[in-house]
Order: sequence, then C-alpha cells, then structure tokens
Amino acid sequence: MAVLITGIGELTTNDAELGKLRDAAVVIEGEAIAWVGAAADAPEADERVDVEGRAVLPGWVDSHTHLVFAGDRTAEFEARMAGKAYSAGGIAVTVDATRSASDEQLAANLRRHVDEAARQGTTCLETKTGYGLNVEDEARSARIAADVADEVTFLGAHLVPPGADAESYVDLVCGDMLDAVAPLVRWADVFCETGAFDEAQSGRVLKAARERGLGLRVHGNQLGEGPGVRLAVELGAASVDHCTYLSEADVEALAASDTVATLLPACDLSTRQPLAPARRLLDAGATVALASNANPGSSYTTSMAFCVTTAVLQMRMTIDEAVWSATAGGARALRRDDVGFVRPGARADLHVLEAPSTTHLAYRPGVPLTAGVWRRGRRLTSGFASKW
Amino acid sequence: MAVLITGIGELTTNDAELGKLRDAAVVIEGEAIAWVGAAADAPEADERVDVEGRAVLPGWVDSHTHLVFAGDRTAEFEARMAGKAYSAGGIAVTVDATRSASDEQLAANLRRHVDEAARQGTTCLETKTGYGLNVEDEARSARIAADVADEVTFLGAHLVPPGADAESYVDLVCGDMLDAVAPLVRWADVFCETGAFDEAQSGRVLKAARERGLGLRVHGNQLGEGPGVRLAVELGAASVDHCTYLSEADVEALAASDTVATLLPACDLSTRQPLAPARRLLDAGATVALASNANPGSSYTTSMAFCVTTAVLQMRMTIDEAVWSATAGGARALRRDDVGFVRPGARADLHVLEAPSTTHLAYRPGVPLTAGVWRRGRRLTSGFASKW
Ligand SMILES: [Zn+2]
Ligand SMILES: [Zn+2]
Repeated sequence: MAVLITGIGELTTNDAELGKLRDAAVVIEGEAIAWVGAAADAPEADERVDVEGRAVLPGWVDSHTHLVFAGDRTAEFEARMAGKAYSAGGIAVTVDATRSASDEQLAANLRRHVDEAARQGTTCLETKTGYGLNVEDEARSARIAADVADEVTFLGAHLVPPGADAESYVDLVCGDMLDAVAPLVRWADVFCETGAFDEAQSGRVLKAARERGLGLRVHGNQLGEGPGVRLAVELGAASVDHCTYLSEADVEALAASDTVATLLPACDLSTRQPLAPARRLLDAGATVALASNANPGSSYTTSMAFCVTTAVLQMRMTIDEAVWSATAGGARALRRDDVGFVRPGARADLHVLEAPSTTHLAYRPGVPLTAGVWRRGRRLTSGFASKW
Repeated sequence: MAVLITGIGELTTNDAELGKLRDAAVVIEGEAIAWVGAAADAPEADERVDVEGRAVLPGWVDSHTHLVFAGDRTAEFEARMAGKAYSAGGIAVTVDATRSASDEQLAANLRRHVDEAARQGTTCLETKTGYGLNVEDEARSARIAADVADEVTFLGAHLVPPGADAESYVDLVCGDMLDAVAPLVRWADVFCETGAFDEAQSGRVLKAARERGLGLRVHGNQLGEGPGVRLAVELGAASVDHCTYLSEADVEALAASDTVATLLPACDLSTRQPLAPARRLLDAGATVALASNANPGSSYTTSMAFCVTTAVLQMRMTIDEAVWSATAGGARALRRDDVGFVRPGARADLHVLEAPSTTHLAYRPGVPLTAGVWRRGRRLTSGFASKW
C-alpha cells in the first residue's frame, strides 16, 4: 500500500542532490520511501495525508543511549545540582538495580523510553549494555536490547565492578563476556577515561571485539583530554562519543579520519561540564553527530530536539548543521545510510514538525514541536496527551 | 461542584506552612482550591481524579510576554544564529506587521500562543502592548490583550518609532497614548536601554503612568549595565526584567527592595548573551522570578519548563528555587497572591507532571513533562497530539 504525504512546506532530505525542497511530497510504500519530489508532481497513492505546510525531516537517529537499566537516580541528580557530594551515587547504583530486575521489568523500562523518544521524533535508536558487568547480566541486557532497539552495543567495559581487579575484569570482558555477547550485538564500546579504563585496557577490549567482527565505538574525552579520541581513530572506530575536551591533535586526527565525533550536549549540561567544541570540529572538517546519551545518571533525556536547540543556541552550530548531525550524522556514526535521509530506498522514518521550518527547533526552545512521526512506514500515535 | 484530585506523589504548594507534601490530595470547588492535605484525610467530592503518583505544582505564572503581534522573524533568527548581520530586522518589522493585521488576526495569534503555553502548564500569563507605537494601535493591542491574558502591560515606550523624534514620542506616550490605554491595563513598562529610552525619558514615562494609577515594570540591564534597575527600585516598580548585566550596587538595591528581578533565560540564550546572574541575586537576598519573554524576535518560546531547566542546569539555581521563581516568583512580580500557590483560596491552577517529582524538570531536559493542567478549576485538554 502506498501513502502519499503532501503539503510539506519544507522537506529536509539530507540528500546532496535532492537538497531542501519546498511544497514537497513523499510517497511511502511498505517500510520504505518510494518517491520524493514536488507536491505538484506527486503520483497517485492509496492514501493521502496533507501536513498543511508543516516542515518534514528524517526521524532523529539517536546513536548513543544507555536504556537497559532499572532503578532511579533522582537523589544523586538533586545533590549534584545543589552542589553537594553524593556518596552513594554513580553507575554502580544502576548496576545493582539492573541485576535485581527481571527480564520483563528491563524490557518494559526500555520500551517505555524508546516509545517516549519516538513520540519526540526519534525513529532509529542505538542502546548499550553496561549495567550488567557480569557474563550473565551483560548477555541478558544484550538480548533484551536486541528485541527493541535498532542497534545494540556491548559496553561490558563501562566500569570495573566494585571489588573487582581491573586487569582481571578486562580479561573477563575480552574472554567469556565477549564470547557470550558478541553474537547478539553489532558494536562494542569502552569507557576510556581516568577512573574507568586506561589506554592499554581500552585497546585490549576494542581489539578483542574487532577480532570477533564487531564494529567499534569509544566513550572518550568526557572529563578531560585523554587517549580516547586517539585510540578510536587508530583502531578505526565508527564513532568516539563525548569529545568534551579535545587537544588540537585530537581535532586534526578526527578531521583526517572516518571516525565520527558524537557530541552529547544534554550530558555536558546535566553534569555541568563545558559544552563540546562543535565549532572547532566542524571548522577542521570532522564529521559531527549529536546524540542524547539517554541514561539515568548523567543525561536522563530522550529529547534529540533539546540537543539540537542547545547545539544551535550555545555551540554555534548552524541549524542545518545541527539537524544533519542529529539525523544523517547519527546514521554515519552507526555506519548506516538507510536512515537519516528522505530519499527513495531509505527507511520511511519521517518527522513532521508543528512548525513551517526546522529553524523553529532552535527558534522555539523547549516548545514540543513533534506533530507526527512515521517509523518504518507506520504512523505512530503522536503527542503527549494524558493517559489517566 | 467539588473535584478531588488524589494520588499526588509530590505536591509543591509554595505555601510556607503547607510546604511540600507526599501522598497528597487537593479539592477544587469552582475556580478555587478548597482543600489541601494528605490523601488519606481527603473529604468526599462529586468527582475524583487519581493522578497515580505524579507530581503536582502550581501552574506556571509567566509574568513577561509580548504576544500581541503579527508577522514572522524566522529569517532574522537564522541570520543571528549564522553569525550574520540582518539589516531588515528588529522590532520595527513586527510593528509594521502588527499595524497591518486585523483585530481578529491579532486576537487569534495571541490565543494560539496562550493555548500553546497552557498546554505546557502556564495558567497565568501577562502580556504587553508595544508593537503598535501609535495611539490607535497601542489601545487596540491593549483591548485585545485584556480579552485573553490575565495581566496586561502598556509598553508604548518599547522603541522610538522609525522617523520619530525621541522626546516628542515620549510626550505622546505620556500624554494621548496613556490617556487612551491606561483605562485598559494594570501595568506600564519602559524599555530602558541604550538605543531605546534613556534614564530621563524612562523616568518620565514611568512617573506619568504612576500618576494614572498604573503599576510599574521596567525592561532593564539587558544589553549592558545601565540605569534600568536603579530606576525601577527608586520608583517602586513591581519588577525589573532581564537583569543580564548587574553592578554590585544593582544587586544590593534589588535585595533591599520589593522590586522583583525577573530573569529571562530563553531570551539570553536566543540572543547569545550571557545568562543572568541568578546566584548573585539569590545569595544577596533579592527576589527572583523566571519568565519566558515570549516574543517573535528575541525569545520565541512559551516554554516555562525550558526556563526552569536552564536555570537549574546553567544558572545554578536549585530545583526548588527555579520552580518557586517560575510560579510564586512570577506572582510576586505581578503583585498577586491568588496564583502561584496551591492552598485553600488560591485560584485552582494546577500542573500535573509526567514525573514523580519537580526535579525531573531539570533531570529530563527537553522531554515534554506536562501530563495535565487545571486552569481556574477547569481541566484543559493537554498534550500535543497532531491535529491533522
Ligand atoms: Zn554514554
Ligand atoms: Zn520583554
């Protein structure tokens, strides 16, 4: 069945040839886009939806989340915002709660957050393990994630579990844990940072994952300049994420590589860090993605619009750059070209704004602007009407 | 008819005695709150609504908007974000469009924005004239605003109209314009800033308004330190708004006065100014309100939640401070005590969050968290479901 979406005031395609279209239309057939062009030239279709001048863009591609978790860290956030130390905080709290939760609880929590993201226009979402930190719970997290998310990343090397020896834990990650999880995931990741895994340990994890055929991602340069970016580029990682503190050498290495710099502005703000140097990266020629880093500790948001707004208002990205980075940029960070674009053959993932242009994503900060969403050709229930 | 709202996981009352309640309930009778207390002690009512553990707080009191306008300034915003000059920009563009619009167009645009704000939890809203800048269009703007908004402010002294002489224009504002508008409004305001009205001109406008019995408000210290705050305090204005650049003397004067410092973080960000020094003001003992400054030029948002989020994440206000400032603080800036509180006798303006605590307003940046709204005891259609 073909659906014609017409009356598109502004269509962002992210396609070099198609560009940005006015008075446009899109035809969806099944799960894919079949046709894109001027509304006046649109072919017949079984069903017709008129979006009455609204802007349409590709659904957000959120390439960095941690949503296989249980428990709550509100008190830790409150303490941080009040400038107080919080002794019981950190990832370990979420690890305990995640291990204690049933499969059903973890799956329901993941689905709830993915649905929340979808209602805000996110149509392709990566998520990670990393709150299991033992063979059984990492494998369980990967299985649950694979049922719900578009892309799954193994992050056994998120943190050395309390009480464990770092080198022995890296042995476990590179051995039994990867054996159990590798068949379930496409990606492996490591938290390469002071207090987590050092350069040698991170390199071991990444190389072991690569030997098993996994693509690589790195958490790096979040809390200070460090080896994360260098390692990611050397090992050909698809993306290095955070990039809050970058040396000139880091920026140059990224610009000369295929590794995407994935910036996480909601995390920078939620941890009161500086915002990542988007302008330096773009001016040097690096590829920049924007992602939510949705997780209950350092960035508890599913709002890609908030990331785009922040990128424009505070990181000096242009609107077109920020929108590209949150759609096609996320796709690049996941080495995909079937999402993040509106063009024939792409997945029918469309985001309709309650606005005539994508500019309004920054011009109207905080106003919920998602008017409608198609994901894999299926129109989602949009909006945030109360359920009680 | 009495409505019992029960199952309130966290109730923010802003009342010194009631404080913050857990497992609470509220009874509404007509337009007012009749009872507040523990859910277990709640009286019978004709209707019962269970909000299932959600947080409830007073509806936002947005004490600073400019929503009697017509036209569009998207291109000017785009140019500013791209770091380009925009010659045709500014308030004068909106003045031309507003003068050309019919009463019906202006009223419909105002209503659309007030409704958008209400769906996000704003239940009391001030708006201003200031895009008419002649006797007829200022009076017309005031009449239209009075039909829709809770509070109306005369801002004939927004800008010297292009081609006019400043002193003669101030004469007009203080004479025929005030004669026409004063009966329609409660407040008068002046844009006291380099490029708008200087200290002497601003003082003339404010004193003329005070003689006619109007309360005073001032736009001041937006683009640099200046006389706005000093003048506001000297003349006993209810509020001085912006306060982005403050001297120590300004902070001390505010702390020693009844004049509220109304901060407009969405405006600061949308114009790439520094954020106003909330912490300095609070630590000195000044009263701080947060407002949207919704207008099509410098702050095109109706999202009070965005202002609260920004205040906590970036201005070092605590969550309780920010929520107070966006509710009771706005009420104080409007010299009201019937809104901004949840207590017997207050207007039944309630905001139900899709979250268990107000902390989530900062913990979950950008996620639309308005689950339900009562305004004057009437439950509004909430949510942002698509209308097509
Ligand atoms: Zn992360
Ligand atoms: Zn203003």
